[in-house]
Amino acid sequence: MTRGTDRKHLHLNAFLMSVGHHEAAWRLPESPASGGTDLAHYTRLARIAERGLLDSLFLADSPVLMGDPGRRPGSKLEPTVLLTALAAVTRRIGLIATASTSYNEPYNLARRFASVDHVSGGRAGWNIVTTAGADAARNFGLDDTPLHHDRYLRAAEFVDVATKLWDSWADDAVLGDKDLGVHARAERVRRIDHKGAYFRVDGPLNVERSPQGYPLLVQAGSSEDGRDFAARYAEAVFTAQQTLDDGIAFYQDVKRRAAAAGRDPEGIRILPGIVPVIGDTEAEARALDEELDRLIRPEYAKLQLARTLRVHPDALGLDEELPDDLPTEDEIEGAKSRYTLIVDLARRERLTVRRLIGRLGGGRGHRTFAGTAEQVADTIQHWHEAGAADGFNIMPAVLPSGLELFVDRVVPLLQERDLFRTEYTGTTLREHYGLPRPANRLFEPVDTGDGHLGIALAGAR
Amino acid sequence: MTRGTDRKHLHLNAFLMSVGHHEAAWRLPESPASGGTDLAHYTRLARIAERGLLDSLFLADSPVLMGDPGRRPGSKLEPTVLLTALAAVTRRIGLIATASTSYNEPYNLARRFASVDHVSGGRAGWNIVTTAGADAARNFGLDDTPLHHDRYLRAAEFVDVATKLWDSWADDAVLGDKDLGVHARAERVRRIDHKGAYFRVDGPLNVERSPQGYPLLVQAGSSEDGRDFAARYAEAVFTAQQTLDDGIAFYQDVKRRAAAAGRDPEGIRILPGIVPVIGDTEAEARALDEELDRLIRPEYAKLQLARTLRVHPDALGLDEELPDDLPTEDEIEGAKSRYTLIVDLARRERLTVRRLIGRLGGGRGHRTFAGTAEQVADTIQHWHEAGAADGFNIMPAVLPSGLELFVDRVVPLLQERDLFRTEYTGTTLREHYGLPRPANRLFEPVDTGDGHLGIALAGAR
Repeated sequence: MTRGTDRKHLHLNAFLMSVGHHEAAWRLPESPASGGTDLAHYTRLARIAERGLLDSLFLADSPVLMGDPGRRPGSKLEPTVLLTALAAVTRRIGLIATASTSYNEPYNLARRFASVDHVSGGRAGWNIVTTAGADAARNFGLDDTPLHHDRYLRAAEFVDVATKLWDSWADDAVLGDKDLGVHARAERVRRIDHKGAYFRVDGPLNVERSPQGYPLLVQAGSSEDGRDFAARYAEAVFTAQQTLDDGIAFYQDVKRRAAAAGRDPEGIRILPGIVPVIGDTEAEARALDEELDRLIRPEYAKLQLARTLRVHPDALGLDEELPDDLPTEDEIEGAKSRYTLIVDLARRERLTVRRLIGRLGGGRGHRTFAGTAEQVADTIQHWHEAGAADGFNIMPAVLPSGLELFVDRVVPLLQERDLFRTEYTGTTLREHYGLPRPANRLFEPVDTGDGHLGIALAGAR
Repeated sequence: MTRGTDRKHLHLNAFLMSVGHHEAAWRLPESPASGGTDLAHYTRLARIAERGLLDSLFLADSPVLMGDPGRRPGSKLEPTVLLTALAAVTRRIGLIATASTSYNEPYNLARRFASVDHVSGGRAGWNIVTTAGADAARNFGLDDTPLHHDRYLRAAEFVDVATKLWDSWADDAVLGDKDLGVHARAERVRRIDHKGAYFRVDGPLNVERSPQGYPLLVQAGSSEDGRDFAARYAEAVFTAQQTLDDGIAFYQDVKRRAAAAGRDPEGIRILPGIVPVIGDTEAEARALDEELDRLIRPEYAKLQLARTLRVHPDALGLDEELPDDLPTEDEIEGAKSRYTLIVDLARRERLTVRRLIGRLGGGRGHRTFAGTAEQVADTIQHWHEAGAADGFNIMPAVLPSGLELFVDRVVPLLQERDLFRTEYTGTTLREHYGLPRPANRLFEPVDTGDGHLGIALAGAR
């Protein structure tokens, strides 16, 4: 694979949601009792994904206990800690963690991701989220979630600060001259002196530049603000797209926005989510899908749906369609794109609340596809060739079996069709995605000639 | 060893400062080039410490680049990330990380430490610091460091919030009843609804209670505020004490304050720091000590000393004693106890600035002891038996060799004298220190009889 030019091969990310994306997955016999905090479980998943040569694994997150603790495993390890633990038991696969720009300080988070990139040998990625929801806000001294647009303004400044901190050491800053007694060249380490609307940060970071320069920047919001943000900053985008037409439109829109922002559209990898439910026959796959839906306790899911739609639970009849008088997306200050996706899905397919819950239970709005391995490979190939995807975010409904089936049955088919790698050719996450290591924006690369305390440099932005 | 009652055995912690506590350690041939970010180096150190059956290892930290990057390795991995990586390569040794109450949010930090405790099987400890210094403040939007007393007020509330979050899941909350479809018992998970002067946090945490309940709480400040804080919250105290008399006085003072705060004084382990410089003969040890001091570049150290003393660098003559007109401790808003320790040391021994720099270069104010393994074991035994220490914070001047010498030569002597364990008898950090697992203050332990959705309970504080 050569960087940035290989359109033929697709990229695969394993989105690991504790015991599976389906909310009832934990009720199956294979599910470990404390899946969200069980390191042995995650170790097994990471090794399966690496055996399948996947580009990366990914951990979602929000700093809040989501929903009723009775419904599904709500206890989850903090993702940068879990990633670090998984770095120790894998060698090549990329490791992407979600962290919030609304509820962290740039200095701390930049340092943590730089540290994960160091300990993993250049395999770290950061899924940048702004974190919707009043419940999360109330864990951080706020009464309600900041306004959607404000969250994105803060996120943009946060990423700007973080990248400057990651660039605050030149790649050649550490000299380690034991004879001279100079450890790092002071003129190759600099303050960033950031003063903005949301942050003032002097810097420099107290970690030298990491193997990748900085973690791969990932984004997953699909609202207007989210797309603009992705176009400016993201190197990989995870997205929920229910139909091929929607997928193509989204793909083209984000690439167009990236070009408008002055970036090479090839520098962004777009990965729609797919929840593959795999059986030996289509009927067997459907039966598993239906069994999972039967295991949902609808009273939990109805409460959550009512919260998402900003209606009273009594306004939702399990065997009726959604009420007509829902808020518009403009009135939603939370996760706008998810809200619209759910309402559109229900209206388009005229789903009852009970059936909508079943559809959402499998992957929170992502496309569930039940079929044989051949059929899953076909739909992946079809979307890829139709221009809806540079790769896929694989979201197994049940873990570990759903990931195992994908790796053992679907990946070989994709390899046979020459759509997926047969060995890792790179060592860093960006190399897997065919993306370049970012240049340092605060320092020109220099050759000091004598290798010492050299000539200065610090080209400020 | 039985819990809390074993006065005979001492406790040993390895304080791992990148390539060694001596500022010139990195100039020795054994030192790796990027010691602060080199996971292989830290892995080696952790394994040596575990081979020596030490209670724990410890990582200091401040969210700022300390001093001139030329002087010594200033680039360091974030401690909770590094601890997690070290948990993966060790099995028994405790793992203590420093984190600041001034520059973190309680929800995030409580979650990270709970996660480290989960992935390490109950080996996490938190060294609670308030972080002095304007340089650090300016990485977090402040113009200067918050006032000393305010920092401790915030720290106390921070620890209160964190312990409530750690207690927000009863130990028996996760039921995992697959038949019934109830994952955790909602009535055994509760919000904390904290509203204080510094924080408002609803909770609950999104991680279930960890193997130790929560990380071992460690503290290291020795100012008045620091001692009161330790007396209220700390289970282990690291301290810098230059003389045996000072050590005994400190030990008695902290235990007395703990009793006055209504705690069992046996519930706090006090560990003075010692920088052992070990040779086959006393002369060899002294020669190594002097070689290290010769490798110091005094221009770096003088600048730092001037900053600590709040004087202009020109006021310090390398071959003169400290000036008479220094600020009093009351005028210092930074690390008060360190300031006083340095000034007292210089005045007591009438040290020139050059000689003071040499003494501080080895361990930033901790007691350097150069001698044979026998002599090191003798001084440890003497302080222990004289009532100045429950154990020691071992701060090798040079790593890895200083730790290797301690483990291979001093530990066996302490074992021969029946002063130190000959095998790990516990699996958690608290078990190593002979301390009890903390009770959950938000839930009474209950036996629900039928093992299900039981009876309720939540005794609020």
